[in-house]
Amino acid sequence: MKAAIAGASGYAGGELLRLLLGHPSIGIGTLTAGSSAGTRLGEHQPHLPMLADRIIEETTPEALSGHDVVFLALPHGQSAALAARLGQDTLIVDCGADFRLTSAADWTHFYGGEHAGAWPYGMPELPGRRERLRGARRIAVPGCYPTAATLALFPAFAAGLAEPDVVVVAASGTSGAGRSLKPNLLGSEVMGSVSAYGVGGVHRHTPEVEQNLTAVAGRPVRVSFTPTLAPMSRGILATCTAPAAPGVTAAALREAYETAVKDEPFLRLLPEGVWPATAMTVGANTAALQVALDDRAGRIVAVAAIDNLTKGTAGGAIQSANLALGLPEELGLPLNGVAP
Amino acid sequence: MKAAIAGASGYAGGELLRLLLGHPSIGIGTLTAGSSAGTRLGEHQPHLPMLADRIIEETTPEALSGHDVVFLALPHGQSAALAARLGQDTLIVDCGADFRLTSAADWTHFYGGEHAGAWPYGMPELPGRRERLRGARRIAVPGCYPTAATLALFPAFAAGLAEPDVVVVAASGTSGAGRSLKPNLLGSEVMGSVSAYGVGGVHRHTPEVEQNLTAVAGRPVRVSFTPTLAPMSRGILATCTAPAAPGVTAAALREAYETAVKDEPFLRLLPEGVWPATAMTVGANTAALQVALDDRAGRIVAVAAIDNLTKGTAGGAIQSANLALGLPEELGLPLNGVAP
Amino acid sequence: MKAAIAGASGYAGGELLRLLLGHPSIGIGTLTAGSSAGTRLGEHQPHLPMLADRIIEETTPEALSGHDVVFLALPHGQSAALAARLGQDTLIVDCGADFRLTSAADWTHFYGGEHAGAWPYGMPELPGRRERLRGARRIAVPGCYPTAATLALFPAFAAGLAEPDVVVVAASGTSGAGRSLKPNLLGSEVMGSVSAYGVGGVHRHTPEVEQNLTAVAGRPVRVSFTPTLAPMSRGILATCTAPAAPGVTAAALREAYETAVKDEPFLRLLPEGVWPATAMTVGANTAALQVALDDRAGRIVAVAAIDNLTKGTAGGAIQSANLALGLPEELGLPLNGVAP
Amino acid sequence: MKAAIAGASGYAGGELLRLLLGHPSIGIGTLTAGSSAGTRLGEHQPHLPMLADRIIEETTPEALSGHDVVFLALPHGQSAALAARLGQDTLIVDCGADFRLTSAADWTHFYGGEHAGAWPYGMPELPGRRERLRGARRIAVPGCYPTAATLALFPAFAAGLAEPDVVVVAASGTSGAGRSLKPNLLGSEVMGSVSAYGVGGVHRHTPEVEQNLTAVAGRPVRVSFTPTLAPMSRGILATCTAPAAPGVTAAALREAYETAVKDEPFLRLLPEGVWPATAMTVGANTAALQVALDDRAGRIVAVAAIDNLTKGTAGGAIQSANLALGLPEELGLPLNGVAP
Repeated sequence: MKAAIAGASGYAGGELLRLLLGHPSIGIGTLTAGSSAGTRLGEHQPHLPMLADRIIEETTPEALSGHDVVFLALPHGQSAALAARLGQDTLIVDCGADFRLTSAADWTHFYGGEHAGAWPYGMPELPGRRERLRGARRIAVPGCYPTAATLALFPAFAAGLAEPDVVVVAASGTSGAGRSLKPNLLGSEVMGSVSAYGVGGVHRHTPEVEQNLTAVAGRPVRVSFTPTLAPMSRGILATCTAPAAPGVTAAALREAYETAVKDEPFLRLLPEGVWPATAMTVGANTAALQVALDDRAGRIVAVAAIDNLTKGTAGGAIQSANLALGLPEELGLPLNGVAP
Repeated sequence: MKAAIAGASGYAGGELLRLLLGHPSIGIGTLTAGSSAGTRLGEHQPHLPMLADRIIEETTPEALSGHDVVFLALPHGQSAALAARLGQDTLIVDCGADFRLTSAADWTHFYGGEHAGAWPYGMPELPGRRERLRGARRIAVPGCYPTAATLALFPAFAAGLAEPDVVVVAASGTSGAGRSLKPNLLGSEVMGSVSAYGVGGVHRHTPEVEQNLTAVAGRPVRVSFTPTLAPMSRGILATCTAPAAPGVTAAALREAYETAVKDEPFLRLLPEGVWPATAMTVGANTAALQVALDDRAGRIVAVAAIDNLTKGTAGGAIQSANLALGLPEELGLPLNGVAP
Repeated sequence: MKAAIAGASGYAGGELLRLLLGHPSIGIGTLTAGSSAGTRLGEHQPHLPMLADRIIEETTPEALSGHDVVFLALPHGQSAALAARLGQDTLIVDCGADFRLTSAADWTHFYGGEHAGAWPYGMPELPGRRERLRGARRIAVPGCYPTAATLALFPAFAAGLAEPDVVVVAASGTSGAGRSLKPNLLGSEVMGSVSAYGVGGVHRHTPEVEQNLTAVAGRPVRVSFTPTLAPMSRGILATCTAPAAPGVTAAALREAYETAVKDEPFLRLLPEGVWPATAMTVGANTAALQVALDDRAGRIVAVAAIDNLTKGTAGGAIQSANLALGLPEELGLPLNGVAP
Repeated sequence: MKAAIAGASGYAGGELLRLLLGHPSIGIGTLTAGSSAGTRLGEHQPHLPMLADRIIEETTPEALSGHDVVFLALPHGQSAALAARLGQDTLIVDCGADFRLTSAADWTHFYGGEHAGAWPYGMPELPGRRERLRGARRIAVPGCYPTAATLALFPAFAAGLAEPDVVVVAASGTSGAGRSLKPNLLGSEVMGSVSAYGVGGVHRHTPEVEQNLTAVAGRPVRVSFTPTLAPMSRGILATCTAPAAPGVTAAALREAYETAVKDEPFLRLLPEGVWPATAMTVGANTAALQVALDDRAGRIVAVAAIDNLTKGTAGGAIQSANLALGLPEELGLPLNGVAP
């Protein structure tokens, strides 16, 4: 099988290529981009010598057609038009936001403009989602923060142990912002500094976490979400709390998480007392999870660490693509990270 | 006036010395430490050439006596015995935890052992505290996390705008852990990684934040506190949320913060839309604050950035010492940071 | 085939395990260590969930016997005794220094004590070395700095373009120092700082670089080597200069490097004008090379970037082991890095 | 006295302001910039709350006139025109390159275009230079790399102990590149990576180091200079080697350095065996020096650590301005750094 990658010169595109280079059943076809069209891939992804001399084409439906799967790693707003031109038989896996939200009102509130619709949501770990991804031809890859926050808390909501007043504070590496030339992303500004941004419920990933947890809980879940930028390239650590339902015990909580991760290839509940660090997951498609009950404050505290580019974007995309293409879900996806 | 510093070879001790070297009214007297006694200060604080050849003495009441002020930067448990021997006329400023908590039950629960009592709490910004510090002879310097979290939220509670179900997630640089030789503090483990620790309401700074906010609110405030370790040496970014009281508006919230910081030399409310970064405060005694109302989630989100070693420890200590010694509160304390 | 790893709890051991987990022909047998014996591997290598529950045994000849290959990642001085007990049929790949130097005088000068001898040197890229590694039963894995410096300069010496007055200044990530609990390796000291150490020709890797380049040049090469510590976990950037031989042109220099890397799977000469960055090689067994002729100063400047744990230790070890075991040299070794 | 700062929104401008805020005799007058004209300083220098509300004016001779001293922190090529308009009585301190080189040929070779001339060179530590700076009305501030490399090696050349075949490899923090929006300066690319650039004798600071050492040595000195970019915001570590003259001993070398630094307020020769780290000098106007004789390689190895923005730019500028204005050379300049 063959994959085209649109947005091959960016960080998400580079991670898709790195993973596909190790994938036994999906080969790498056409690479496209916008302003980088016509250049060698090696100029943009110097860590991928095996593809250094590949020439990047312009992102057009023609360039992307003729592949079994097309991965879109593009700014939002471009996926719908491309998808319409690629035909219903091609698997399209969109790493962007266009088709993640089911609520048109939420879309308009957070992204502005008109809602393009919703595609099957690429988080197989959520109850009932894996089946919907098998054989799918359209997949919306979850956002990086929603991946971390949802995986941290869904076991508690699935077991009915948490109340819906959720607070999430997450630290992300700078690669989550892509290769944008903004002053606040310069190394000189980032190193030695943690900063907040998108505070006050305005970050676009907020309704996506709510959508996921609401579906699991079976009742509306509100999320206060604050993202922060940390001085590292990769990784998200999401610290997530929700009020404990009456009578919840630490043992019941642990059991709920053990049940939730039991058959999941990429969820890893750490031994009791060990807390996630993003370094555990660099380059891996793994989410490292831990949970505790804070009796004094009456809150469940769940923490997830992921690599924002792997499980949070490109790895999650390939995991769902594997399901859609009828391949083993784990195929080509690293479980082990690169550390220290 | 002359100061002795106990614990001069550690990070907090080094920051006390750096600041005192620029203090116009307090000179540097005896330096003491534990296992480093007998060595040159330059071995431990190579960034302080002006003191490089000072010899560190052993921490004893004799070595510390004869000074106008004694700063203790020691592991907890050592302050009470030293204080008892130093006499009631000497100002003792304890950067450790021994005398911060007023509740003996909280002390025993979080620190174990017997409560030594409480000294005047060195956070002049809290309502009514400044006056109690003037002329005081004993001062308990607040913990670094409590400094950030309290300064972030006290204006909301002082104005009656927040409900007492607080969630704090804070990222700290590694210097907060001191110069301890632990594997998880090695550069190889820390760089490129954000990790959680002390999760689930067990961190010792939790009851201190509760104590502060309870005093301001006039009713019990519960805090869910999660600390995380970020790949930087200095700085704390505390993201703090509390449910908004009924009817709170963004304008009322802003006004409450403007009122709270108006006459405070070291509190800095950023312009609207600008969010704190720890890089704004490196080496400065300033706390950079911002607040927003999240209407959807019904929560106030307040963020504070401080330098954990300056405003969070040594600078806060000198600020309170200035008050106790009858000096201008700002004397010798930098308002500006070192950046980028 | 099955491999035992001695020193499995350290950084080099962890990297050997990470790579072997992806090796199609070498399985992972016994894991041993010193003070970590009896603990779970997951405590030390939390990035390797697939091996988390393996119990580490004590490093003894008995524990290591019965494997096709034994990788030793131990402090120097321990390899000889273990090797003597493991028999001549077992392939022993020593990541330590014990058997790297051929000169007993150099050994005693730089390491002290008695010289244990020399094993086939695991750098197949050097002229004539690949053949000696095929079928070998003892292999001395090169040091990390010598790997970078030798690969940077050997093409110039092999082509007779360089004079033997070499200056090497190399920056290494902190993992090169292992998981040692030393104050100067703490994150607080390392972050935001580059420092020199082992200056003045005293670093133990100096004679190893000289030995390599002398062998290639066919005449004695002297090396002034200065290592520096950089604020990153992984990577070595070696900047290496040598006087240009009379009449050398930039074109001849380029050609010499193109010739040297032509059939080498892990040497990568970057396009002209692109200079190595360690980020190009994180987690990869690749060395990124570039060279220039400085006409004004009359010097060749060659730069190599490697991952000190991969090509510089564990990857280099497996590359040579592949040759010794009759496997394809590249088997199981990543060409692509993890970036950004 | 009053200073105007042209280029107030950049990193060098910010450091000038930080230092002048602590200067007892020079007040801060007009602030100017190019594209940032009309904005608040706080938008660009959020670490300087004391100046947050100052409005930046456009850089014109009119805006800069009427000050005792004008600091220019501008891209090269703009200083000559401004200086011509400011009058001979105003002290102009140019942090840019325009007037550093005495050789028109070197200027044209390295910078292109026509040579504007040379101003008194602001490195008082060099033999005979301090006197020329007293009362000067024009000062060319040395480049950051030349500051580190020259201070590292001049004592050896002044004492006749070194031969003129110099090799310098220096690691710089990213702030040396200014606030330029280039992909290779993004945090995601910089963190976890050391990279080479400007290799092969093409970096513009090369002839400046040669000019300095040639003047000290009294004979032509050639320099092979390679800069590298390290994952930190501030700091330069320059590793500098030169062949030892015949018969040089370690004791003679040490003595030469002790003599050179003896009366210098900002040069600090570290105790024997201690090697410079950039963390020793963050925010300080100090250069930390160390030297060793490598007997085997026949080379002197000298290492200097400075803060590129302080001693390497803004601090060096104020040091020379103090001399020119008849003030004590050390006035307002920190000797101690901010660490860890």
